[in-house]
Amino acid sequence: MDERVREHAAVLVGWSARVEAGDDVVVSVGEGAHDLGVAVAAELGAVGANVVTTYDSAEMDRAYLRAHDGEFATPEHELALYETADAVLRLGGSRNTAATADVPDGTRRAARRVGEAVREARMDTDWVSTVHPTRAAAQRAGMSYEAYREFVYDAVLRDWESLADEMARVKEAFDGGSEVRIETERTDLTMSIEGRTAVNSAASVAYDSHNLPSGEVFTAPADPEGEVYFDVPMTIDARRVEGVSLTFEGGEVVDFAADRGEEAVASVLDTDAGARRLGELGVGMNRGIDRFTDSVLFDEKMGGTVHLALGRAYDACLPDGEAGNDSAVHVDMIADVSDGGRLLVDGETLQRDGVFRWEDEFEGA
Amino acid sequence: MDERVREHAAVLVGWSARVEAGDDVVVSVGEGAHDLGVAVAAELGAVGANVVTTYDSAEMDRAYLRAHDGEFATPEHELALYETADAVLRLGGSRNTAATADVPDGTRRAARRVGEAVREARMDTDWVSTVHPTRAAAQRAGMSYEAYREFVYDAVLRDWESLADEMARVKEAFDGGSEVRIETERTDLTMSIEGRTAVNSAASVAYDSHNLPSGEVFTAPADPEGEVYFDVPMTIDARRVEGVSLTFEGGEVVDFAADRGEEAVASVLDTDAGARRLGELGVGMNRGIDRFTDSVLFDEKMGGTVHLALGRAYDACLPDGEAGNDSAVHVDMIADVSDGGRLLVDGETLQRDGVFRWEDEFEGA
Repeated sequence: MDERVREHAAVLVGWSARVEAGDDVVVSVGEGAHDLGVAVAAELGAVGANVVTTYDSAEMDRAYLRAHDGEFATPEHELALYETADAVLRLGGSRNTAATADVPDGTRRAARRVGEAVREARMDTDWVSTVHPTRAAAQRAGMSYEAYREFVYDAVLRDWESLADEMARVKEAFDGGSEVRIETERTDLTMSIEGRTAVNSAASVAYDSHNLPSGEVFTAPADPEGEVYFDVPMTIDARRVEGVSLTFEGGEVVDFAADRGEEAVASVLDTDAGARRLGELGVGMNRGIDRFTDSVLFDEKMGGTVHLALGRAYDACLPDGEAGNDSAVHVDMIADVSDGGRLLVDGETLQRDGVFRWEDEFEGA
Repeated sequence: MDERVREHAAVLVGWSARVEAGDDVVVSVGEGAHDLGVAVAAELGAVGANVVTTYDSAEMDRAYLRAHDGEFATPEHELALYETADAVLRLGGSRNTAATADVPDGTRRAARRVGEAVREARMDTDWVSTVHPTRAAAQRAGMSYEAYREFVYDAVLRDWESLADEMARVKEAFDGGSEVRIETERTDLTMSIEGRTAVNSAASVAYDSHNLPSGEVFTAPADPEGEVYFDVPMTIDARRVEGVSLTFEGGEVVDFAADRGEEAVASVLDTDAGARRLGELGVGMNRGIDRFTDSVLFDEKMGGTVHLALGRAYDACLPDGEAGNDSAVHVDMIADVSDGGRLLVDGETLQRDGVFRWEDEFEGA
């Protein structure tokens, strides 16, 4: 086994999920994530955790959903599993990133809505999502398998403690600010962050951060107004989506368009009321990620990008007792701000052309 | 997909597990059972069941067990899952039948003991075990992949209702009898079946039968006395075992030997007190199985064989409120009785040379 797979597993179990002896852990293994599964099993055995392994198969999901009449019920056994679990490690690893492309939208939405209770139970655990590099993901990224593996491990195997220190400065600016403004050639969007707490997402549950790799600072914005254009391509529900523009009025999407995959965006917006509002504003700060690979887990963390998510907000960003935006979806959309972009907090430039104001290369306001 | 995979899934979900709309089903998918998993997912979607899919990976188990210090605890989340489930479908499918060969015996035994509670919860559901034909299983059977698939589907895709009628005659003989005697060249074993109820194992939970394929009649014997020799090779804990002889006195194994793999037999016997007693007597009646393939699921069902299991008895064979033999293990061992063997109930010959007394080919008593 590639030594990097073992290192990946060690970072996931030790740094990210902080698993301890006796913890009840669910490991979700994607169709192509077997090797990482084996390495994670060894780490969990060494720690002395208790393990249930689930199989996250896109092909099984597709077969099930296409055969189903759409009248879904909450799976009580799945709920019991996650309600009793301490941690959930999701090892993504696709063998075909288009495997669920022909699941009808209506079925997908109905399943998602009924899946809410299980999702909430899972998110109440110390969950962490990561991915094992597969040939399918390399293909989606337009890269050779060898080069893609380099890419993934450059992003995952970082000095997370020192990145956390750097990200603390952005968190500080957000936590002290009231309004964020994003400007690019086709974007002028303002939103409130008053009273919200930013997350220093250092790829560890100890930082309320649940992705590996991570390397972003995010918060839960409110009342967006204006236009935003997302120039980074993405895949939504197995469909290619490019060049999405959203218009916000009164905090909600009132108009939208896409150069490609507009119906996928429409399907997201139609999920529920919360799907038309924002759940997240994030600033990518992982400079181990040097290109877009059509995987949100990586793309949104890339240094020189900002992203917004339609849908659900993370509780960690909200004052105690305050409910943020609620939705069955959380769909991230990304803008490259490294060339001509500006990020302002209360009218002061925090970042221009992807460079923060405390960096040597920063030019003017 | 091979049409036989779909038929297999349909028999499993419909005939065997009798899954109904709204049932909470756990599907356990072996490393090599993905295709059957997809077909089963489609059947479960069509029925409208709720599904949790677990991944049964021998390589993950090995990694976990070898890294663990051996102080296992009951996984509460796994217990919660099975205690809430209505049915469990186990889709075996090995990619390497020796994948766990280097797990230390002590670790294996300790894990098995702590796994008792979970196992009991699982067996309280409408569980069914089946296998998807893999190249590794074909190799173990000494067969080509193509021929092995024929073999598996010949065993699985049967007219189960008419086989159930045939097996009812053996059940009747057992239910009315008090003592069974098995004779072969190297076997002379008697055991009590007084008050026990035989199971007509027609591959359906409706018959208290939990294997697909099945095709056996089994009961829970008591107080075995004598010698028994098992000439059918088997694999125990990933180790080859051949030519096992057991000597019973006072209902317990007092002496044993094996031509090969004696230490694997010793390890089973050392698990707990119940591992030295019998949990099952079974008569194979599936004539779709025409050869031994080193897989107990098939071998023990073959017409012209009888098998005995060390360890745990099935509740279905016991009078209400009576506890049968209890153990963390249930290890089947098989004798070919088709040439020179005899099976007697209360001194009357039930079967000679693999032929039942009601069959045309039956010769004398």
